[in-house]
Amino acid sequence: MKYVFTNILGSFVLDDGLKIIGKAKEEGKLKLKPVPKDKINETLANFKDKKYYQEFYQKNIQLTKKAIKDSVNEDNLIMQTISNITELDKTTNLLTKRLREWYSLYHPELSKKIARPELFVEQVLKEKKSKESMGAELSKLDLEEINLLAKNIQQLSSLRENHEKYLEKIMKRYCPNLLELAGVTIGAKLLELGKGLKKLAVLPASTIQLLGAEKALFRHLKTGARSPKYGVIHDHQLIQKAKRDLRGKAARRLADKLSLCARLDFFQGEFKAKEYRKELEEKLK
Amino acid sequence: MKYVFTNILGSFVLDDGLKIIGKAKEEGKLKLKPVPKDKINETLANFKDKKYYQEFYQKNIQLTKKAIKDSVNEDNLIMQTISNITELDKTTNLLTKRLREWYSLYHPELSKKIARPELFVEQVLKEKKSKESMGAELSKLDLEEINLLAKNIQQLSSLRENHEKYLEKIMKRYCPNLLELAGVTIGAKLLELGKGLKKLAVLPASTIQLLGAEKALFRHLKTGARSPKYGVIHDHQLIQKAKRDLRGKAARRLADKLSLCARLDFFQGEFKAKEYRKELEEKLK
Repeated sequence: MKYVFTNILGSFVLDDGLKIIGKAKEEGKLKLKPVPKDKINETLANFKDKKYYQEFYQKNIQLTKKAIKDSVNEDNLIMQTISNITELDKTTNLLTKRLREWYSLYHPELSKKIARPELFVEQVLKEKKSKESMGAELSKLDLEEINLLAKNIQQLSSLRENHEKYLEKIMKRYCPNLLELAGVTIGAKLLELGKGLKKLAVLPASTIQLLGAEKALFRHLKTGARSPKYGVIHDHQLIQKAKRDLRGKAARRLADKLSLCARLDFFQGEFKAKEYRKELEEKLK
Repeated sequence: MKYVFTNILGSFVLDDGLKIIGKAKEEGKLKLKPVPKDKINETLANFKDKKYYQEFYQKNIQLTKKAIKDSVNEDNLIMQTISNITELDKTTNLLTKRLREWYSLYHPELSKKIARPELFVEQVLKEKKSKESMGAELSKLDLEEINLLAKNIQQLSSLRENHEKYLEKIMKRYCPNLLELAGVTIGAKLLELGKGLKKLAVLPASTIQLLGAEKALFRHLKTGARSPKYGVIHDHQLIQKAKRDLRGKAARRLADKLSLCARLDFFQGEFKAKEYRKELEEKLK
């Protein structure tokens, strides 16, 4: 009577006294009985032998490394990219404010004339100020420094654009429905806040509706302030286009469909997001 | 009997009835009597005539513009530049943290191996990871995005370097003593916190010693916590090199000399900072 016992090192053939005879190479063909449950502890004692220690140790490390390797997936890439987009936004904001202040020594009128940050930065690099400006005359050396700052701001903006294109590429494979209905930035933020597609797919729609509004939600629960109507989906076109008093309703409906999208994507179902969008557009007219 | 009366529009010749005859071109040669003090109000009434309104208005704007123009000086340029250096430091810090996290998906071992931010960023751009790494395999597309971030961080660092060189150029002309004793960054920060060379020159040395430690100072005054010993001068070599229990003393002595430097620079006195430095180095041995 021979037994077979399998662990992470492979399958072992044991004699009826439960001593290890050798490794089984093709388990299927051997037709051996597995070790009965009540004898497992006895069998395990066999492996306390020193010669197995090292083998167990290395196999374990190998498996752990593989598990770590495999644990990195699209979720992680998307989360890192969208976090960096958020940080780039903060950064360009900060630096553009500084640029406005600095350049205003030279030409204070421009900052008032141009409100949009990107346009302002562009104009700083292009323009020669009019003679009527009440700004100071700065030397070439001084202006060069300001221009360098403006160029760096532009580079950060173009990095952000790159990130968005990259996100779109990943999301098109990974979560096409969510991408279609939510758009790149909002979709990625939902994945970030939901901590991955799997978890997002099992969240109730009402939670998705409020992802990103945690602060306001807790304020509501604590102090009884008004409850928030939306989190990051606030910037979504469908909500922005809706009338002010219908926005709560629009948010609820959008979140319903977004939840469906996340589920379709996670279970690799059909592509239905375009239909959903049309449906929503009609209902919210 | 003729009078002469001068205002921002120029000098006017008046007859003995105080009527305006015309403008005086060369006041010096006319040898006219100025309008007596008790008749000034009467004279001013003359200028209520409409034909002077427009002239006054435009002259005023002209003068205001000029005043604004002239109010921009080295102080402003230095303050803007050093503020931007502070903001760039924050920014590169933030983005390097993100880079570490992002790159660790691919090669987690590197971040542990290299602590210095600049070196880490450089290595990300150079390196190919070893096969034993437990990081995930990322596609070329994924790695490109990470590399773009690293390149942007390097560009921001080089902008910071540029700013420092520029500051050094201005300060060499404007405040050579302060530059020599405090160094570029600390010197510029002192000017920023003191709100310009003029104000810095009249601050007591004890205030200069604590510039930049306002928070700790108010905490001390409010809660009786330990009083701070230094503000931005904390990073100065002379203090860093001093023994821990002598740092307060070192800070006081350094601040004394810095205050003298600011005064020398503001009143365009001699260049004595090198002597001061030697003196301090010997005393603090």
